[in-house]
Order: sequence, then structure tokens, then C-alpha cells
Amino acid sequence: MTKVTDRPLILVANDDGIDAPGILSLASGLDGLGDIMVCAPIEEQSAVGHAITMRDPVRARAWPFRGPSGPVDAWAVKGTPADCVKLALNKLVPRRPDLVVSGINHGPNTAVNVLYSGTVSAATEASILGIPSIAFSHCKWGIGDYEASARIARKIAIHVLESGMPAGVLLNVNIPDLPYEEIRGIMTTRQARSMWEESFSERKDPFDKSYYWLSGTFVNLDSGKNTDLQAVEDGYVSVTPILHDLTAYAALRDLESWDIMGAFHG
Amino acid sequence: MTKVTDRPLILVANDDGIDAPGILSLASGLDGLGDIMVCAPIEEQSAVGHAITMRDPVRARAWPFRGPSGPVDAWAVKGTPADCVKLALNKLVPRRPDLVVSGINHGPNTAVNVLYSGTVSAATEASILGIPSIAFSHCKWGIGDYEASARIARKIAIHVLESGMPAGVLLNVNIPDLPYEEIRGIMTTRQARSMWEESFSERKDPFDKSYYWLSGTFVNLDSGKNTDLQAVEDGYVSVTPILHDLTAYAALRDLESWDIMGAFHG
Repeated sequence: MTKVTDRPLILVANDDGIDAPGILSLASGLDGLGDIMVCAPIEEQSAVGHAITMRDPVRARAWPFRGPSGPVDAWAVKGTPADCVKLALNKLVPRRPDLVVSGINHGPNTAVNVLYSGTVSAATEASILGIPSIAFSHCKWGIGDYEASARIARKIAIHVLESGMPAGVLLNVNIPDLPYEEIRGIMTTRQARSMWEESFSERKDPFDKSYYWLSGTFVNLDSGKNTDLQAVEDGYVSVTPILHDLTAYAALRDLESWDIMGAFHG
Repeated sequence: MTKVTDRPLILVANDDGIDAPGILSLASGLDGLGDIMVCAPIEEQSAVGHAITMRDPVRARAWPFRGPSGPVDAWAVKGTPADCVKLALNKLVPRRPDLVVSGINHGPNTAVNVLYSGTVSAATEASILGIPSIAFSHCKWGIGDYEASARIARKIAIHVLESGMPAGVLLNVNIPDLPYEEIRGIMTTRQARSMWEESFSERKDPFDKSYYWLSGTFVNLDSGKNTDLQAVEDGYVSVTPILHDLTAYAALRDLESWDIMGAFHG
């Protein structure tokens, strides 16, 4: 990966698929900031979490992707969002990207949903390799108008390209479903505590065998002010720094006092 | 989910599949501690990360599972490890479990591998719902001898059943590939910083089209003493408390100083 130009290289991925409106809005919103390259799943990959494909081969093919300034180098991958970024960084990019962005996801990736998010997992792959990365989500279930989100994405991307990011951290950005003029600002937040109160609808197939379909109600367990959920509800863009160290540091000391800890055999 | 007995209910899941030797060892190791119930994928689900199945139905069927004390109530699920625990907790359990365990995974789930781990994701689903949960992994790639791991699992499970767990936290337990007598003890650890130096082998199919196969070399970036990697290398059982809050708290203040943060529009 030799540097052939001084223009920043920005890799764009997502989990909604390469033909989703959100990725076109994101690539378009970043137009002119550098060389743009797109690598995204050929099929929708929502809720795949941080899945990677190891038992099967991954395929990629060139994809006709058109940005506002003309054709964009783009690859459609038969694989997960994490696969897309891994493959792009290893095989497809002409040089090491300066920034990896993922989105614009249709639907929030706030609170516990971060765990299931393919959008965030794509950004995580880059951050593990030390490349600044940002996941963008538009907080409306279903396809929305990404004009405001694309402007916000550009604003944040410019800042990151110019000023860098804390090491190993990615930004998880959630944008309220509002016109740009009504968005109140940008806030740093933490991930809200929450859960899904789930239910499975049990149904019978034509052969009278049961199958189950997941549904659920989202429950916010967090009354804190500085959470991703609250920021979006208040009309702010939520920016949560995310780290792939899952250690519960606060619990470490508690565990150390357990009587099963320590050396065996005397 | 009414309480019909005072015996603890222990739900056992994994990601290697319901017929993997590790889950039989785990269920056997916990024999007698309470009522055991097994719910695990019908097919191997390694590296699925925290995937959940939303676009397709999930199916479950009763599975003939035999523990040391006789038949065990068991379900094989066509789905991911997270699906198994969600479905079990919602539809299959006779009452709320007192403990959810996952494993014994064949292969370590230390360092960055935690992100990709189906074993850990199964335990995470329970911890989100406030049920104590533990993921067990045996640090040998490929099938090993789980006798020592099963004894360790029993020891830790007894402690958790008796003393509980810090709220919202799960335990990620990695056990060295050693005979029980040679294991030096149990240590609390943090997740090591690490990455995979990946490569994709590019091959041609019979139609001369390229496909890629992921491979890689694990790189430890962490020279700290109290990491999961170091503990296992030193012959200790590694116990890392894991939280599903991914916020990079140390980076929050740094971000707050960014000049793009704050209110828009004056």
C-alpha cells in the first residue's frame, strides 16, 4: 500500500447494502474531501453484529457507483460489514485509508443496539488497525431523508481528517431525524443502558411445525442526561467514542476479592 | 415463568453446536448444581459475533442430550448463539434461570477475539437481562480434553450461584490447555489489546473468477501483566469481567474539547 497521492483516502462501508440510499448520501456528503472508495455488502446485513466469514470464501466485484463528481471506485462484497472492511484494507485499497466511515444506517445505533450493529462493526475493524473511523446512523426506522445527516457527516469527517482521533477509538454518531436547521448541535455522549423486552411470535408452518419470529420493545434503563438516547431525543447529534476493550474495569476489584481467586494447590 | 422448584435453573449454550464435545463437558461439569437445560445452535456458529436473526424465522427442536445423571432437557436451534439464549429465555425455559453458561468453546476467546465470539455473545444476552452469566473457553484451537475446564467451570459456577455477580457484568473465562493439576490458579484479568494481521488468500474458481479466503496472524499489542492473554500463558485461568457498555470513557473529555461540539445556529 504505497502512497501515490497526498489526497486523503476515505473508505466508505455500511451494513444496509451497497445499493442503499444511505451509503450514496454518505459518499456524496464527503465528496471532494479526498479520494472516495466504497466497499459494502451486496446484500443487507443488519443485525449481523461483529460477524466475520471464516468457513466460506468471500467474493467481491466491481460495482457501478456514481457520486456527485462522477464514478466512484466501488466493490460489492458477498459477506458481512466486517468482511468488507477487512477485505478492502487487505486487498482492494490502493493505499492505507486516512479515514473509514460506515453508514448512513437507516435506524439508530444507540444504547444496546451498538452490540448488534453491522454499521459499528465495520468502523470497529478499522479502529482496531489504528485507522480513524466513524459510524453514522440516522435515527429513523426505515428509509429517511439523509440530507441533514450527510452534512453532519461531512462536518465531523473534516474535523477527524484535520485533527485525528484518540487512539483505538471510533466515533458512533447518531443523527436525529430532523431537518438540518432544526438540529440543535453536536454532543458527546455515553452509551445508554437499555435492553429489548423481547417476545417471539410462535407460528405454525404448512406442515404444522412451530417456528418463531423475534420481535421486541426497546426499554431505556438509563435516566442519565449525557446518553446517546437522550441527546438524539433532545434534537442533538450524539457522538459516542467507542472502544473495543470490553473489560468492566469497575468490577475488577470486586472480583479480586472472591475466595476462588488466586493460586491453586496450596 | 413461575418458580416451580427451589433448585437453581442453569441454562447452557454455546457456539460450536449442540453436538460439540465442549457443551457436553460443560453440562456434565455442572451436574447436580441444579436443573440443567441446554439450548444451542444445531450447526457450528463460530465468529458470528453478536448476530441475531431478524429477517428469518428461528426454529427449535427437542434434542436427545444425555448428561451423567440421565437425559437433559435440550433444544437445538437453527440460529445464532444470541438467538438461542433469546429464544430459550422467552419461550423454552420453565422459569427464569439463575445462571446462564456458554461453552466450553474450543479455542481461546481472549483479547480482540472477544468481539467475534459467539460464545461470549450468548452470555451477553443473559447479562443484558440481569441474569448472571459466564462464557468458558478452552485455549486450544481444535477439540481438546475438557476435563480440567469442566472442573474449573463447576468451581466458578458454584461461586456465582452462591455469591452473585456485579450487575450487568458477565465473566469471560479462558482456561489454559493444561491438566488440572498443572493449572496454577484463577486470576482476574483485563482484555489484552491485540489485533489480527490479516491476509486474504486470493484464489480462482473453476470459472476463473476470484474469491478470497480470510487468514491471519494474531498480534499481541499489550505487554501488561494482568491481561487475559498473559494469565493463560502463565498457566492461570483468566477471568475477565465484561460489560456491554462500549463507551470509551477516557476519550469523552478529549472529544468535548472539539470545536465542532456544542450548539448550532449561534
